[in-house]
Amino acid sequence: MPQADQGHAMRFDEPLKLDSGRTLPGFTIAYATYGTLNATRSNAVLICHALTGDQFVIGTNPMTGKPGWWETMVGPGKPIDTERFFVICTNVLSGCMGSSGPASIDPATGQAHGLAFPMVTVADMVRAQARLIEALGIETLACVTGGSMGGMQVLEWMAKFPQRVGRALPIATAAHHTAQNIALHEIGRQAIMGDPDWRNGDYLKAGVKPSRGLSTARMIGHVSYLSEAALGRKFGRAVCSNARASFGFEQEFEVESYLHYQGASFVERFDANAYLYITRAMDYFELDSMTAFKDLKARVQGVSFTSDWLFPTAENRRICEGLKASGVDANLREIDTDRGHDAFLLEEPELFDLVRDFLK
Amino acid sequence: MPQADQGHAMRFDEPLKLDSGRTLPGFTIAYATYGTLNATRSNAVLICHALTGDQFVIGTNPMTGKPGWWETMVGPGKPIDTERFFVICTNVLSGCMGSSGPASIDPATGQAHGLAFPMVTVADMVRAQARLIEALGIETLACVTGGSMGGMQVLEWMAKFPQRVGRALPIATAAHHTAQNIALHEIGRQAIMGDPDWRNGDYLKAGVKPSRGLSTARMIGHVSYLSEAALGRKFGRAVCSNARASFGFEQEFEVESYLHYQGASFVERFDANAYLYITRAMDYFELDSMTAFKDLKARVQGVSFTSDWLFPTAENRRICEGLKASGVDANLREIDTDRGHDAFLLEEPELFDLVRDFLK
Repeated sequence: MPQADQGHAMRFDEPLKLDSGRTLPGFTIAYATYGTLNATRSNAVLICHALTGDQFVIGTNPMTGKPGWWETMVGPGKPIDTERFFVICTNVLSGCMGSSGPASIDPATGQAHGLAFPMVTVADMVRAQARLIEALGIETLACVTGGSMGGMQVLEWMAKFPQRVGRALPIATAAHHTAQNIALHEIGRQAIMGDPDWRNGDYLKAGVKPSRGLSTARMIGHVSYLSEAALGRKFGRAVCSNARASFGFEQEFEVESYLHYQGASFVERFDANAYLYITRAMDYFELDSMTAFKDLKARVQGVSFTSDWLFPTAENRRICEGLKASGVDANLREIDTDRGHDAFLLEEPELFDLVRDFLK
Repeated sequence: MPQADQGHAMRFDEPLKLDSGRTLPGFTIAYATYGTLNATRSNAVLICHALTGDQFVIGTNPMTGKPGWWETMVGPGKPIDTERFFVICTNVLSGCMGSSGPASIDPATGQAHGLAFPMVTVADMVRAQARLIEALGIETLACVTGGSMGGMQVLEWMAKFPQRVGRALPIATAAHHTAQNIALHEIGRQAIMGDPDWRNGDYLKAGVKPSRGLSTARMIGHVSYLSEAALGRKFGRAVCSNARASFGFEQEFEVESYLHYQGASFVERFDANAYLYITRAMDYFELDSMTAFKDLKARVQGVSFTSDWLFPTAENRRICEGLKASGVDANLREIDTDRGHDAFLLEEPELFDLVRDFLK
């Protein structure tokens, strides 16, 4: 077992101009690394996390006490092999695991920024991340990878820093957030902002948390990350073993109990305002895949999953077609699985083989 | 234009034994009729409404002032032709448009029943409906039809009252609610029950309404009734004409504005507790399509839509296969449309032709 990286944080005092037109006077990026950077600094793999992810890819997450979110993919001898590669993962700007965001402390007031924190886009997240990569003395990344919003960050790296990307592996993502995706996010945000404990975003000052709203938002997300087939296979219409047919509104079906568990454990580890900010960043995401990648020389391997209805194959194919039209060496692999969008986090041997081959 | 039926209501004083084991001492069924019952009482078509529907199929709905929900399908010269058929639609038991339910007045207290109203299943809804059909002196229904939960009621009629069904036309439905469907309903219920104005179901006594929670629940439902393609075609990533890129949490994308409108107009017309009861009734729905239809002699035409991910073709096909295995004259038509589950309410010429032919 690799030792868990307890995480680092780097402070940047040079202002960061944001897409919104506002400027962050300074910011902190929290990150974790695994493996060893080689002498030529050429073996760095940047992993970009998804909406509810964090920098703790493997080992025990020091914030939650749980295993890292990509144990299946990363580690000694794993497809992203920490014996070969120096793996870096940063908590996104506006996240809640140590990077600057609505939950971080504003030094001017000694209190959480809350909604005073400026809105951040995926491009802003990547700009901040690029500062860290520079500060670590890494000119070119051997590979940039990530799924979902992680994949959006990969696309931003490809578009904005084409010279600094050796290979790119965007997984289950899209060049723009679709209307359905925006709709699902907005519903989650409404659940949070409708919770009276949200207090217009100032809940941390008041010592409360909009747990119920955040839990509901998480449930919506969770359903969208799975598939009808996966939910059917896992739960079907099974009734909780300790429940009678209650003919009431308690959790009675196992799928309800599962969702409540997902909601409750999420509110333990995630900040509600960060959820608002990051979902909004995804909603704003929009690259023109026909023109964005003109200067890219990297090899690109895209991945999609047949049962992913949130970031379906068609969206991933559009990226690949844009890349090819720009003369980029790009391929898309559609993996047949009924596990939905979350398949990239799960035991998917075809994905592991593909990544292993791609990084050879 | 046909004159709108202003609606009727019939009171039943004989107790109704419910699936939960509880008994309703008496109940009211509100209903509307269109067209004229013929002398042999053989031209009655029963239309069963969906989760958020009501008895006002065509004409101006007297409760909302808006057109009926199936104007496309029903009326003089329409596929369900009110010049040929006597059309009946009842507000479901536990509904909020005049039938007994959590929002109706308990004569014992003079106040709304609220959660004291017993839980009702789809079979209970149909039992109550069957009493009305009897009371109208109709022995056999020329046809029973409906989409979504309306289709579930059609299946119940086919299973429990096979001798009384001449033809059956279940549209975009399922013999059981899937895990994904239960999950989506539970999220909506959590949004309602998490609204502090829900007050444990006693909001009517307090003179308030859990509007925000009910609106969020409606938004979740609405996204599930459409499809990614339909939302993409209608809204894409368009930004509201009166909005700048706000970089905030106001409604900015047109799809957000649309959802908010849907939520706001829904809370004007629907009772939050009724939404809880009816979603739960759908969750409980489960027929074994291989055995439930053994005694049925009716002709059955099922309909599904290619882009319906809530009640997909596979679920509708399972019903049809069960019917055929029971020797029933049954067919399924899958209609190619990108409009999702709600296609049954929309302008779908292939559906209209099919229904017209089936009722010849």
